[in-house]
Amino acid sequence: MSDRLDIQAVLAVLKSVLQPYQGTVPLHEPCFAGNELAYVKECIETGWVSSVGKFVDRFEQQLADYTGAKRAVAVVNGTAALHACLLLSGVRRGDEVLVPALTFVATANAVAYCGATPHLVDSELKTLGMDPKKLDAHLRIVADVKQDSCWNRTTGKPIRAMVPMHTFGHPADLDALAEIANHYRITLIEDAAESLGSFYRGRHTGNWGRIAALSFNGNKVLTTGGGGAILTNDEDLGTRAKHLTTTARVAHPWELAHDQVGYNYRMPNINAALGCAQLEQLPAFLEQKRSLAERYKKAFFSHEGITFFMEPEHARSNYWLNALMLDEEEAGQRDKLLELTNRNGIQTRPAWTLMHRLPMYRSCPRMDLSCAESISRRLINIPSSAVLGAEHAPS
Amino acid sequence: MSDRLDIQAVLAVLKSVLQPYQGTVPLHEPCFAGNELAYVKECIETGWVSSVGKFVDRFEQQLADYTGAKRAVAVVNGTAALHACLLLSGVRRGDEVLVPALTFVATANAVAYCGATPHLVDSELKTLGMDPKKLDAHLRIVADVKQDSCWNRTTGKPIRAMVPMHTFGHPADLDALAEIANHYRITLIEDAAESLGSFYRGRHTGNWGRIAALSFNGNKVLTTGGGGAILTNDEDLGTRAKHLTTTARVAHPWELAHDQVGYNYRMPNINAALGCAQLEQLPAFLEQKRSLAERYKKAFFSHEGITFFMEPEHARSNYWLNALMLDEEEAGQRDKLLELTNRNGIQTRPAWTLMHRLPMYRSCPRMDLSCAESISRRLINIPSSAVLGAEHAPS
Repeated sequence: MSDRLDIQAVLAVLKSVLQPYQGTVPLHEPCFAGNELAYVKECIETGWVSSVGKFVDRFEQQLADYTGAKRAVAVVNGTAALHACLLLSGVRRGDEVLVPALTFVATANAVAYCGATPHLVDSELKTLGMDPKKLDAHLRIVADVKQDSCWNRTTGKPIRAMVPMHTFGHPADLDALAEIANHYRITLIEDAAESLGSFYRGRHTGNWGRIAALSFNGNKVLTTGGGGAILTNDEDLGTRAKHLTTTARVAHPWELAHDQVGYNYRMPNINAALGCAQLEQLPAFLEQKRSLAERYKKAFFSHEGITFFMEPEHARSNYWLNALMLDEEEAGQRDKLLELTNRNGIQTRPAWTLMHRLPMYRSCPRMDLSCAESISRRLINIPSSAVLGAEHAPS
Repeated sequence: MSDRLDIQAVLAVLKSVLQPYQGTVPLHEPCFAGNELAYVKECIETGWVSSVGKFVDRFEQQLADYTGAKRAVAVVNGTAALHACLLLSGVRRGDEVLVPALTFVATANAVAYCGATPHLVDSELKTLGMDPKKLDAHLRIVADVKQDSCWNRTTGKPIRAMVPMHTFGHPADLDALAEIANHYRITLIEDAAESLGSFYRGRHTGNWGRIAALSFNGNKVLTTGGGGAILTNDEDLGTRAKHLTTTARVAHPWELAHDQVGYNYRMPNINAALGCAQLEQLPAFLEQKRSLAERYKKAFFSHEGITFFMEPEHARSNYWLNALMLDEEEAGQRDKLLELTNRNGIQTRPAWTLMHRLPMYRSCPRMDLSCAESISRRLINIPSSAVLGAEHAPS
C-alpha cells in the first residue's frame, strides 16, 4: 500500500469545505424552502390527499415540461417506476435484462419482479455507468440476433432490455448505448432514478430510450417523501403506463372492472403536492449542488492519492451524490477513511455492494466486471445536500 | 320482474337521510379535522418526510395498540401489504390461493404477483365474505392433505393460503374459516383492507390468521393518502415483514447490502404523519359511521324490495361502505337505480366485477359462485363518509 494518501488530510479538506455546518453533516438531506407546506395544506383542506387530485396532474405536466419528455406518469417510488418500465417493454419470465453490476439494488430487483434475470454489465471509469465498448465486445461473443430479438447463446434466453443507470446523477454514454441497443434489437430503458436535472448532449436524461424511470426518494435531488415517475416520448406507451400503474381499471362512471393484472403504483396527491413545490426549486437546488461540487473540485485538486469525480464529457450532471475516488493503490485506506469521516460527523459511504456480491444475484450471467470492482473498492460518497452549496456558504 | 321496488322512492329515502348535504354526496370522502396539518408541518419543518422518521414508528405502534396485534408494519398501500403477506406466508410460483370471487381486484392481483393462481371461493349472504360451509364442501371434493400441505387434486397444485376479505368492513366468519384452514393445512391470511375498526367476537379483525393486510387508501375509514399495513402476532414474522418491505437491507452504518429480493414498500414519514392524526380520530369516525348506518337501517326498515345490509352476528363492523341489497326479483332495477341516484348527485356504485368475470382471472379454478353472483347482481353501495353521521346531521 502506498502512503501517499493521508486520510487525516482528506478529513481536513472535507471539514474546510463543510466548515460552517454544525453537527453531523448528512450525506444528503432534502430542503423545503418553497411552497411545500402551502400545497400540502391545500390537499388537507380540500380533502384531496389520495390517488386522484390536481397536484398529481400538475406534477406530471411539470415533469414532462422540465425533462422534455412527452409523457410523465407519477408513481409511488422509483422501484415501481422501473418495474412498470420493464413490464411495458415486454420483459417477461425467462428473459434476461442487461443491468450494471454497480447500481442500487432496485435496478436488479425490478428485473427479478418480472421473473427475468439480471445480466450484469461492467462500468467505465469516465461515466461510472455501463461501458458501451465492453458491452459491445461481450455481446459479440454471447449474443445472436434472431427473429428481430437478441438471444444469449450461452443460456438460450432472450436478452430483452438494457437498463443503464446514471450513477450518482452522471449520465452514462447514451449515444453509444443506444447504438448497441439498436444493433442488437434490445430495448433501451434508462434508470434515471438519480439523474433528474442531468443532461446528456444538452437533452435531459430519460429521453434516449423507449422509457425511463425517475425517483423522488427522500435522499434524491428533490423528494416527494416516496415517489417516482415514468418518462416516455411515446404517447401510447404513456397512456399504457398510466393504466398499468392505476390497477388497469376500465373507465366507467361506476362499474369497477379491470382488463389486465394491474398495479397500485399511483402517487398519492399529497406526495405530488410536495413534488410540485420541490420542482419549482429544482433550478436553485441544481445551482447549489454544482457550486458545492465546484468547491470539492477545487479543494481536492492536486490532492495526492484521491480524485474528486467530475461530470463526463458531453454531460451536465446534477451532482446528486458527490464522489471521491481513491487511487487504486490506496484502496486499502477506504474503510479507514469511512470510519474516520463518519466518526467525525461527516457522513460518507462506499458505493453499493456490487450486484454479483449479493446472495440472490450471485449466479446471474455476467461479463468481466473488473472496472466495477475497482470503482467499488475505491469510491466514497461525500455530503451532497443542495444547502451545502447555498450562497451563504463559504467560497 | 316485480314492481314492488319503486326506485324513485329509494331515491327519496336516500335524500331524506342525506338531506342537509349540498351538492354531490360522494360515496366516501376523508375527514381531516385533527392534527393532520400540524404533524405534516412537523415533517416538512424537520425535513423528515421520507422512509425513516418518527411518525412511521409511532403509526406502527398506534396500529398495533389499536388492533391488538403484536406487530404492525406500515407500507405504501394495501396491495403491497397483501403481496408481502403472501410472500411471507411462503406463497410461490405455481401455488393456488383461495380468494373470494367478490373482492376488490387487489386480492387476486397480489396472488398473481407471486406467480400463484387465485382459486375463487363463493360468498355467503350473512357476511358477504367467504362461505365456510361451501368452502369446506368444495375442499372435501377437490383437496387432499399430503405431507402437511393441501393439494388440489384437479390441478395438481398446492393450495397454500386462503385470503378471506372483510367485505365493506363486515367481518367474514373467521372462526369457521380458521378451522378449515387448520384442518386443510392452509395458511390463513386476512385481507382486512376494508376492516380497520371492525371486530369479530370482540377482537379486532386481522388477528385470526398468520398475518393480515390493512389499507389506508383515500376512500378508507382513515387515510394516509396512500398506505397500508401488515399485522401479525408473530414477532419474528413482523421483523421479517419489516425487512422484506424495506429492500431487505442488511443493517450496517454505511455498507449497502441486501440479503434477498426485497421490496421498496415503505410508507413515507409524511404519509404516516397523516395516519397518526387520523388514528386519533378513528373512534369518532367509527361512531359517526355507525350512526349513519343506524339512520339508513331505520329509513329502509320495511321498505319493499330492498334491504339495508347489517353487520353479521358476532361482529361489530366499521360500516366502511354501506350497502343496499335489492331483492333477487328486483335485480333488473339495479342499473336504473344506479343511474337515477348518480344523476341526482348521490354517488352509488355496484359491487366490484367478480374476479372470474375479469379477463385475466377468467380461467382460474373456482367453485360454484352462485351466491357471489347473486350479491353482485343486487348490491349497491351508498354514501358512507363519517361526516354524514356527525352529530349535527339530522336524526
